[in-house]
Amino acid sequence: MKVSIIGATGYTGEELLRILSGHPEVEIIHITSESSTGTAINQIYPHLTKLYDNVLDSMKDLDSIAAHSDVVFIALPHGHAMEVGKKLAQQNVKIIDLGADYRFSDPKVYEKWYKVVHTHQEAKAVYGLTELYRKDVTTAKIVGNPGCYTTASILALAPLVKQKLVKLDTIIVDAKSGVSGAGRSLSLNSHFTEMVENLKAYNVGGHRHTPEIEQALTGLASENVVINFTPHLIPMARGILSTCYANLKQGVTPEQVDEAFHAMYSDEYFVRLLGRGGYPATKQTRGSNFCDIGWHVDSRTNRVIVISAIDNLVKGAAGQAVQNMNVMFGLDEKTGLMQAPLYP
Amino acid sequence: MKVSIIGATGYTGEELLRILSGHPEVEIIHITSESSTGTAINQIYPHLTKLYDNVLDSMKDLDSIAAHSDVVFIALPHGHAMEVGKKLAQQNVKIIDLGADYRFSDPKVYEKWYKVVHTHQEAKAVYGLTELYRKDVTTAKIVGNPGCYTTASILALAPLVKQKLVKLDTIIVDAKSGVSGAGRSLSLNSHFTEMVENLKAYNVGGHRHTPEIEQALTGLASENVVINFTPHLIPMARGILSTCYANLKQGVTPEQVDEAFHAMYSDEYFVRLLGRGGYPATKQTRGSNFCDIGWHVDSRTNRVIVISAIDNLVKGAAGQAVQNMNVMFGLDEKTGLMQAPLYP
Amino acid sequence: MKVSIIGATGYTGEELLRILSGHPEVEIIHITSESSTGTAINQIYPHLTKLYDNVLDSMKDLDSIAAHSDVVFIALPHGHAMEVGKKLAQQNVKIIDLGADYRFSDPKVYEKWYKVVHTHQEAKAVYGLTELYRKDVTTAKIVGNPGCYTTASILALAPLVKQKLVKLDTIIVDAKSGVSGAGRSLSLNSHFTEMVENLKAYNVGGHRHTPEIEQALTGLASENVVINFTPHLIPMARGILSTCYANLKQGVTPEQVDEAFHAMYSDEYFVRLLGRGGYPATKQTRGSNFCDIGWHVDSRTNRVIVISAIDNLVKGAAGQAVQNMNVMFGLDEKTGLMQAPLYP
Amino acid sequence: MKVSIIGATGYTGEELLRILSGHPEVEIIHITSESSTGTAINQIYPHLTKLYDNVLDSMKDLDSIAAHSDVVFIALPHGHAMEVGKKLAQQNVKIIDLGADYRFSDPKVYEKWYKVVHTHQEAKAVYGLTELYRKDVTTAKIVGNPGCYTTASILALAPLVKQKLVKLDTIIVDAKSGVSGAGRSLSLNSHFTEMVENLKAYNVGGHRHTPEIEQALTGLASENVVINFTPHLIPMARGILSTCYANLKQGVTPEQVDEAFHAMYSDEYFVRLLGRGGYPATKQTRGSNFCDIGWHVDSRTNRVIVISAIDNLVKGAAGQAVQNMNVMFGLDEKTGLMQAPLYP
Repeated sequence: MKVSIIGATGYTGEELLRILSGHPEVEIIHITSESSTGTAINQIYPHLTKLYDNVLDSMKDLDSIAAHSDVVFIALPHGHAMEVGKKLAQQNVKIIDLGADYRFSDPKVYEKWYKVVHTHQEAKAVYGLTELYRKDVTTAKIVGNPGCYTTASILALAPLVKQKLVKLDTIIVDAKSGVSGAGRSLSLNSHFTEMVENLKAYNVGGHRHTPEIEQALTGLASENVVINFTPHLIPMARGILSTCYANLKQGVTPEQVDEAFHAMYSDEYFVRLLGRGGYPATKQTRGSNFCDIGWHVDSRTNRVIVISAIDNLVKGAAGQAVQNMNVMFGLDEKTGLMQAPLYP
Repeated sequence: MKVSIIGATGYTGEELLRILSGHPEVEIIHITSESSTGTAINQIYPHLTKLYDNVLDSMKDLDSIAAHSDVVFIALPHGHAMEVGKKLAQQNVKIIDLGADYRFSDPKVYEKWYKVVHTHQEAKAVYGLTELYRKDVTTAKIVGNPGCYTTASILALAPLVKQKLVKLDTIIVDAKSGVSGAGRSLSLNSHFTEMVENLKAYNVGGHRHTPEIEQALTGLASENVVINFTPHLIPMARGILSTCYANLKQGVTPEQVDEAFHAMYSDEYFVRLLGRGGYPATKQTRGSNFCDIGWHVDSRTNRVIVISAIDNLVKGAAGQAVQNMNVMFGLDEKTGLMQAPLYP
Repeated sequence: MKVSIIGATGYTGEELLRILSGHPEVEIIHITSESSTGTAINQIYPHLTKLYDNVLDSMKDLDSIAAHSDVVFIALPHGHAMEVGKKLAQQNVKIIDLGADYRFSDPKVYEKWYKVVHTHQEAKAVYGLTELYRKDVTTAKIVGNPGCYTTASILALAPLVKQKLVKLDTIIVDAKSGVSGAGRSLSLNSHFTEMVENLKAYNVGGHRHTPEIEQALTGLASENVVINFTPHLIPMARGILSTCYANLKQGVTPEQVDEAFHAMYSDEYFVRLLGRGGYPATKQTRGSNFCDIGWHVDSRTNRVIVISAIDNLVKGAAGQAVQNMNVMFGLDEKTGLMQAPLYP
Repeated sequence: MKVSIIGATGYTGEELLRILSGHPEVEIIHITSESSTGTAINQIYPHLTKLYDNVLDSMKDLDSIAAHSDVVFIALPHGHAMEVGKKLAQQNVKIIDLGADYRFSDPKVYEKWYKVVHTHQEAKAVYGLTELYRKDVTTAKIVGNPGCYTTASILALAPLVKQKLVKLDTIIVDAKSGVSGAGRSLSLNSHFTEMVENLKAYNVGGHRHTPEIEQALTGLASENVVINFTPHLIPMARGILSTCYANLKQGVTPEQVDEAFHAMYSDEYFVRLLGRGGYPATKQTRGSNFCDIGWHVDSRTNRVIVISAIDNLVKGAAGQAVQNMNVMFGLDEKTGLMQAPLYP
């Protein structure tokens, strides 16, 4: 399978390279960067030495990139991906975008939260949360790969929402992320000395992953869902933990909660259920495509608390993108994704 | 002022020594440890060299300790403090317990959550959350110093509960703590290699700070409050962040929320209000007795989100204990507590 | 290939499981732990869920373990491995010991530094630093897998010592290690709160990897080498950096230094030469079997400074053990070891 | 005492503010920043809220700043400080520069290593390593405050060099620093995600603290000293550890080494000798002005290894600057510097 990556020098692009270096069916054709065209990727990421000697291309000649590739991953900032996607969509190539441009079925929602006009509204993109939309991904031309927080949060809440076990207006997601989620661009918030031994919330009430979670939950519930989503920055590089709260509907038993999770995920390789009273730790997923989920039913308050953990760069980005690629090309979904977590 | 510390070798005892080394009115008389009796404190904590050359005593001769002291801090595991407190209560000495034994007005609640029989129920202890109960602390013989999570959480929620701005059955506290909160006892959960680059929840639905928060909120609301409290372990040594959620009552405005905070805390030196849309970071309180508080009023869900940050060992333990001591002895509350946070 | 692991619950044993889960020729037969016999490995290490469901055996029936296995890895504390090795040596099975018991050609040196009588002196063990002793490993029955510090330090110094470019009595190794090197046993030195935001030297002048480095350098130089070796503890989980100093012999040029490195390592896949003026970072090797090496020739002092980086649990332990296994069984040395480093 | 700070928004300036907030004799007059003129300091550093409400001035009107101040601290990048110093030198005000511009007695050395022409060569600046040059500091008009690495390294080596116990051409300093040493300017080397769980050397053979250490040792030895100095970046915010190696002269005994340290430092409050076989940890000095020193005499190689630890922002910068200020104004040297280290 011939693979190209548009925007290969951010953490998401690099993580694609890391994962694909172990994928038996993949050959990397083009990797691009406008600011580093002509530079070898292992000068930018020396850890890739001996694994890659590819030189970064420009994405200017997209037609040629498309012609050489079976699939193109786009790892550009939002707003830029749709320009690239629009051109690639005319070619005989599949497209997986790791940003936000193809995640929303309603472009109005996208435009409201991202403050950008959507210029590729005719794209029939599929939302690539594989466990929930696998059938659609199978035949998709364009996949909008989910956000990191959203992957963890939707997987945690989907069984309860789908089975209508919780009151939809009581959902709160308190999420925590390692700093790699903020990318490789320099900022005081990602400055080592500021963030080590530190902890804080940010974008309270306004984070752009909010409407993405709401869109998925609304679809599952077949009625409108509005939530609170609060992200926090944690002094570690990788990992997301989502702690989700909801009030149970009258009469729902702990066993029904358990059954909802098992019904949805028993056959899903990449979801590991820790069960009622089992709680995930991000490090147990690090470097892997697993999403670990545990839950607690609180009899004092009649709430359910679901906690999920992923590696934000893997199941929350590049790993799920490769999972989608496997599905799109009829491969075993796990191909190239069987690496054990790097623990400790 | 002559001060003794029962149980000086844990982090709380050590932190008392750190803070008191800069207190102009204090002389340290006895410091005790049963396992290290006869050892100099600076052999156990070499960073105290040149600041202390005290040798650890046994607490066996409590009467003598009491006779030499104006105030005794107890920094023992719960269940042990009340035995010591019971004996000291007969002497002419004030008592500040940093554990849980004197925090509950209803011993039944204590016994239920701590699985220990309370043997000093006749103690008329005052709950030492200074900003809320200062008047009682002034005349107290015994102070039960609050827990770390509880200090951050109660200070965050008190204005809203007291002013009856929120629905009491909707309160959720999602709290995050550095690992020093687990103390100096060795465990896999506090093992460096396991916890660095890691993040997890623990004691979901069952943490013992839950009833302590509920007791205070119930008192402020004059009706029964039951909450969800979820603690998380963060890969850093010091700091607690409490993210608190509650539904606003019908018609409550953002301005009313702001006013509630200002009404309660404008004159409180150790509470720093960051205002609506301002969010605290634990590092900005590190090593200091400050509690920083910010909040967000979410019009989409009609919830208020309050976020507070403290140093768990200072305002969450030893610092607040010294603040209480100052109040009990008629000193300026800030004496010895004016150290700027250690940032970065 | 049928593989068993004696002592599978420490970090080294666990890392063998992680690596071997991706080895196409390996089937895990027995994994043992005396303290957790009967427990599933994924209860002890939940991150291995879905990758392993093996249950821990006792090592009591070693004959049976040997009969079922082509190779047995021993990951026990020093002093214990030789007891196991002695029994296994009688069986038709190959043995790779990850501890110190089989690393020394002179048992007297072992006994002096490890304060234990060597009870299996007749073992003809091969020292498994693959790049240097590959030919011997090919036919070995027993391999003594090198220590973590020693792997990094010997690989850094070997070219210069072998080519006689440096004065042998001027070698100093200043080494830095992540805390996982201290293992999973609890101690105050590995307590999160004590070690985060901290840095210190330990065992100065007395660390047991000293004689192991000296043995290898003495062999390469054909004359006695005595060095200074100073280990330091760094607040991170994985990674070793060795900074090695030596005086160049009169007249040695920077180009001769370069050539010595290229001559020894150009064909070695797992050694990546960053060249003169290139400096490794531990994170660029994390999770991989690479050893990265860079050097500086200092004209002001006529010294050469060589810096090497490895992942202490991979090239410094389990990865190199698998590399040795591959060599012993005639497989491509890289089999199962091609994982890209986990960066960032 | 009226104090102004030129360049108050970097970590060094901020640390001066932190320390001076507890200094009983100091009043802060002007604090300056060209990029943030008009902004309140607690908007840039919210942790200073309630401790400072000063607004940042421009340094344009230096004469006025000088007229209002008894002492001016300069915390500007090298090359800029001497321009300011030159103007201030004409006024009746004392000057303490925390950068490199006033550290070298020979401007040629400065110009060679810093690649800048020295424009204030007539300044009779005193090198402010207080323990060694206290007498000169007493009467100084301008003090060049030492670098962080240099403070730790010179204090570690001074007794041995002064007493001529070591061979001067064998000195090697292997130093390790927390990331705050790189300041608040953004760079990939200080990006959290890149540096956490990472470790590397930098500027090998070329770090600008090399000639500063050599200048001091040359002065103590009364003969020319050339050393190797290798700095490393450690994943923590604060702290420096210097591991120093030197060959003992023939016949020097361990007791002579011990005596050299005691002779020089017994009366120095801020130097804590851990003795032979005692090793410092950076965390034991964090937030304090202490320099902890331990050493090992290695009979196998006849080398002495001296290890020193400081907080790079305190004894390595702002703390020593305040110590110098106290000396210059005839105050007790410890005034405002008695804070206990923040441990753990």
